[in-house]
Amino acid sequence: MKKFINDPYDVVDEMLEGFLDVHKKYVRKLDAARTVVRTDAPVAGKVGVITGGGSGHKPAFIGFVGQGMLDAVAVGEIFTSPPPLACFEAAKAADGGKGVLILLGNYAGDVMNFQLAADMAKAAGIPVEQVIATDDVGSGPREEAHKRRGVVGAFFGWKVAGAKAAAGGSLEECKAVVEKVNANTRTLGVALSPCTLPAKGAPTFTLAEDEMEYAVGHHGEAGTAKIKMMSANEVAEKMTLEVINDLPFKSGDEVAVLINGLGGTPQLELYIGYRKVKQMLDEREITVGCSYVGEFFTGLEMAGFSVTLMKLDDELKELLAAPADTPCYKLMA
Amino acid sequence: MKKFINDPYDVVDEMLEGFLDVHKKYVRKLDAARTVVRTDAPVAGKVGVITGGGSGHKPAFIGFVGQGMLDAVAVGEIFTSPPPLACFEAAKAADGGKGVLILLGNYAGDVMNFQLAADMAKAAGIPVEQVIATDDVGSGPREEAHKRRGVVGAFFGWKVAGAKAAAGGSLEECKAVVEKVNANTRTLGVALSPCTLPAKGAPTFTLAEDEMEYAVGHHGEAGTAKIKMMSANEVAEKMTLEVINDLPFKSGDEVAVLINGLGGTPQLELYIGYRKVKQMLDEREITVGCSYVGEFFTGLEMAGFSVTLMKLDDELKELLAAPADTPCYKLMA
Repeated sequence: MKKFINDPYDVVDEMLEGFLDVHKKYVRKLDAARTVVRTDAPVAGKVGVITGGGSGHKPAFIGFVGQGMLDAVAVGEIFTSPPPLACFEAAKAADGGKGVLILLGNYAGDVMNFQLAADMAKAAGIPVEQVIATDDVGSGPREEAHKRRGVVGAFFGWKVAGAKAAAGGSLEECKAVVEKVNANTRTLGVALSPCTLPAKGAPTFTLAEDEMEYAVGHHGEAGTAKIKMMSANEVAEKMTLEVINDLPFKSGDEVAVLINGLGGTPQLELYIGYRKVKQMLDEREITVGCSYVGEFFTGLEMAGFSVTLMKLDDELKELLAAPADTPCYKLMA
Repeated sequence: MKKFINDPYDVVDEMLEGFLDVHKKYVRKLDAARTVVRTDAPVAGKVGVITGGGSGHKPAFIGFVGQGMLDAVAVGEIFTSPPPLACFEAAKAADGGKGVLILLGNYAGDVMNFQLAADMAKAAGIPVEQVIATDDVGSGPREEAHKRRGVVGAFFGWKVAGAKAAAGGSLEECKAVVEKVNANTRTLGVALSPCTLPAKGAPTFTLAEDEMEYAVGHHGEAGTAKIKMMSANEVAEKMTLEVINDLPFKSGDEVAVLINGLGGTPQLELYIGYRKVKQMLDEREITVGCSYVGEFFTGLEMAGFSVTLMKLDDELKELLAAPADTPCYKLMA
């Protein structure tokens, strides 16, 4: 295992120490738990938007704490859910008097621990709602969409909920707009290489030199199939067709496109993938309203990328275009 | 070679097609050459700031074209200098009547082709000055600092020159502030793995499982020595000591710190490296005025990182803190 680390069991605390110093203008850590919050949290009179999960996904999650996005994030060990207390502290720290919206991927540990935190928050008099992202079409059949994983499509939920809350939206309104995001968003990922957990020291799967891992998530888990290596155009076409057909996205739709690098893939390759996705959408008269290419949700050093489409309407376009100022995502007014 | 590409000879054009579509709010390509410019170039009454170089370093160079940074970039093939015509077109497109500042790394092809472009620009009546970055202490002895490579320290030059130009600085003033940046900036890099050029198909060097490549640049070139694998703290200490001693940086100095990922290294590891650098600076009573952690100048999928320090003064602090709005670097006012 070749990594720039010290003791494998210290990676999250040491990362966090560095992160908090670099980004102290935006974020601080609570004393009570490993929870990162906006420096000005709670923002009075605003719905709090929180999430949490394992580490190793940077810039997710803590890179998106700040104005117009997340108010607080509970930080777990690498690929491990944060404990209920850290989730509860996130809810308390984000509560500005209008309630707290919890946004989650669909992972058993996160769901369980945030459910406990939600119960504690309600007992403490904090109104709480939650939305669970399920955008990964590679993780289950369409008939059981509620069992699918939440992957990088969650980024749209954080952006849109943060913008809605900043605009004065109520807890119910913030929840409703993220539910719309989730209903409108589909993702599929592919990998060229696995990742290695620091405390484990061995790759999460193995691949031959001429193979790709298809329909992967962002935890270095194996996908649904090992398939033969293809050109960028071929694999982008295969993935995009599955994504388009799942919603389905149709002629006349306007969409947001997100090409997410999983960690080890050069940006250059992500833009080559985007080019093919754009061509396919043009051919189908699906309009690209906005597009995002880069690393938004990684799995350590995995090489790979995902294709995400979200169907847009006027409300979603306006919320995506609203200003944001966080360590890792900034958008000018 | 496992890469998401199509024909290896099309990677730059296909990347560029994707990039231009995603970031059309910020940038456009000239018809006359493979040169990327601000959508509003030339900005009348402002010094134009341009650079250029090979591709494969994203977000450098084209990711930094926009308000408060670069006006135009000449785009070469992977790790290959752009042709003189593309450099000349960059100068023409950036000329708003106050002259053009050319910022370069210290690579023979870039220097030669931009010299030809500068001669053409002068013949066309455009005042031109240039500054060549030489921040890489690993690429030559201190006595021959002018022969050193320019690496990620160039980012500070682009930021500061762009801010100075946006504030109405003259060509001479913009040049002088980048010369100060270069005099005050030192970088050293280390790699855990090489990269593979698409058209070559083989790694640029080989390393044993327990080895690191020390004092590397960002072209997958071998460094000055293969050294045994160390912990993050040990290698960060070794690098930072060399950087500190080279200027030298001294007690009472205020510095900017930049930890740059070379492509394949997770952000988590970069923050662990930053933590150690910060500790060392604290111990020496060198104040960290601002800090940057992430990918600013990569070499395709190389795993590795560099440590950069720049000595600050009031002018540099003000220019670093000025707003910028580009595809890959944004700073709110």
